[in-house]
Amino acid sequence: MNTIELNTSSRTQLVDITREVQRVVTRSGLADGLAVVCSAHTTAGMTINENADPDVTADLLGVLERMVPHRGPYAHAEGNSDAHVKASLMGLSVAVPVEGGRLVLGTWQGIYFCEFDGPRRRRVYVQLLPAPQSGTEG
Amino acid sequence: MNTIELNTSSRTQLVDITREVQRVVTRSGLADGLAVVCSAHTTAGMTINENADPDVTADLLGVLERMVPHRGPYAHAEGNSDAHVKASLMGLSVAVPVEGGRLVLGTWQGIYFCEFDGPRRRRVYVQLLPAPQSGTEG
Amino acid sequence: MNTIELNTSSRTQLVDITREVQRVVTRSGLADGLAVVCSAHTTAGMTINENADPDVTADLLGVLERMVPHRGPYAHAEGNSDAHVKASLMGLSVAVPVEGGRLVLGTWQGIYFCEFDGPRRRRVYVQLLPAPQSGTEG
Repeated sequence: MNTIELNTSSRTQLVDITREVQRVVTRSGLADGLAVVCSAHTTAGMTINENADPDVTADLLGVLERMVPHRGPYAHAEGNSDAHVKASLMGLSVAVPVEGGRLVLGTWQGIYFCEFDGPRRRRVYVQLLPAPQSGTEG
Repeated sequence: MNTIELNTSSRTQLVDITREVQRVVTRSGLADGLAVVCSAHTTAGMTINENADPDVTADLLGVLERMVPHRGPYAHAEGNSDAHVKASLMGLSVAVPVEGGRLVLGTWQGIYFCEFDGPRRRRVYVQLLPAPQSGTEG
Repeated sequence: MNTIELNTSSRTQLVDITREVQRVVTRSGLADGLAVVCSAHTTAGMTINENADPDVTADLLGVLERMVPHRGPYAHAEGNSDAHVKASLMGLSVAVPVEGGRLVLGTWQGIYFCEFDGPRRRRVYVQLLPAPQSGTEG
C-alpha cells in the first residue's frame, strides 16, 4: 500500500499533503483514475480546503473547537474524545480524480491531513484506481 | 474530465444534480462501477440527502447556519469563513455505485451540490471507475 | 450489488460492520483495490472510528445530539430532521483500501453504520473496485 508518513507538531493542526500525494501518483505511473487518501487513525481525519490563506485552516480548527471542546462531558477516559468526533466530522478519507498523471483539484484546493490529537507520528494510505481514459471514444 | 457546470442563485443553497450525474454515467457507457462526484471549490461541498420534502434541505442549511454562523469570530478576512467550514463538514465529494448503467441510490436519496458562498458559477467533476460485473461468476 | 442488511435497535446507534464488509471482500475474491461502503438511506450515515472502547461511539452520538438536538426549530414535519443532518455530517459512505484480500484499516479503526432514526431494517451497499497490484513493477 502506498503510504505517506508525517510528524505533526501541535494537538490540532491541518497539514497540506497535496505535494506528497502527487508524488505517489507520479511514481505509480497512473495516468487517469482516482486517488483515495485515507487517515489510518481514529483521532485524525482528512479534508480538502483552501491552501492560499492560512487563516482558513485556523478558522476551521477554531470552529471545530467551539463545536466540540477539548474538555467536555465525555465518557471516554483518555481525554481525546473531541479528537474522535472531529475526525468523523471531517471524514476519514478524500477522493481526488487523476487526469494525465495529475491530481485534478480546483484552483484553491489543497489536500489536508487533520491532526486532532497530536503531536504524533502519523500514517496516510493512498490507494490508486485506474479509469478508462476519457475522450478516446469515437 | 467529466464536468458539470451550474449556476447557484443564493448564498447558501442545495442543488439536486442527480439527473446531471446520471447523464454523465449514461453518456460514458459505464455499466458497473463507481461515480465519484467532486466539488472543485473550497466554499461548496457535496452530500446525499432526501429529494422528496424540500424542508429537509432547508433544515440542513438552518442547522449549519446555527452551528457555523456567517458572521462570527473568524480570522479570514473575506467574510466567507463559515462557507469553508461548512464545505469541509459536508465533505468535498460523494461516491455512488453504478449497476447496469444506473446510479444505485436509496429510494429517497438525491445527490446535492452544497453552495455556501453563492450565487456563483460552479464546477463539479465526475470521475467514473469500472468494476468487474458482479453476479457473473459461476 | 453487494448488499449488507442489518437491524438496528435504538433511535441512534453506531453498528460495527467491519466483519460483514470483510466477508463481502473475501467472497468476491478481490485482491487489491478499494471497498466503498454506502448507506442506502437519508437518516443513517457511515463513518470509521475506534472499535476498542465503546465510550468513543457513545461520545460521538452525545456530541451529535448536543449539536443537532432531536427536538429543535425544524421545518420538516416527520420529527427526524436531526437524523437527516447527522447523516450528512458523518457522510453517506466510507472508502477503505484492500490489499491481499484484506481491508487496510488502522489498528483501532472499525467501519460503523450510523443509525439516527431507528430502530429499523437497513441496507448498506458495498462496491468493490480493482487496483493494479502495487509492488509488481520492475
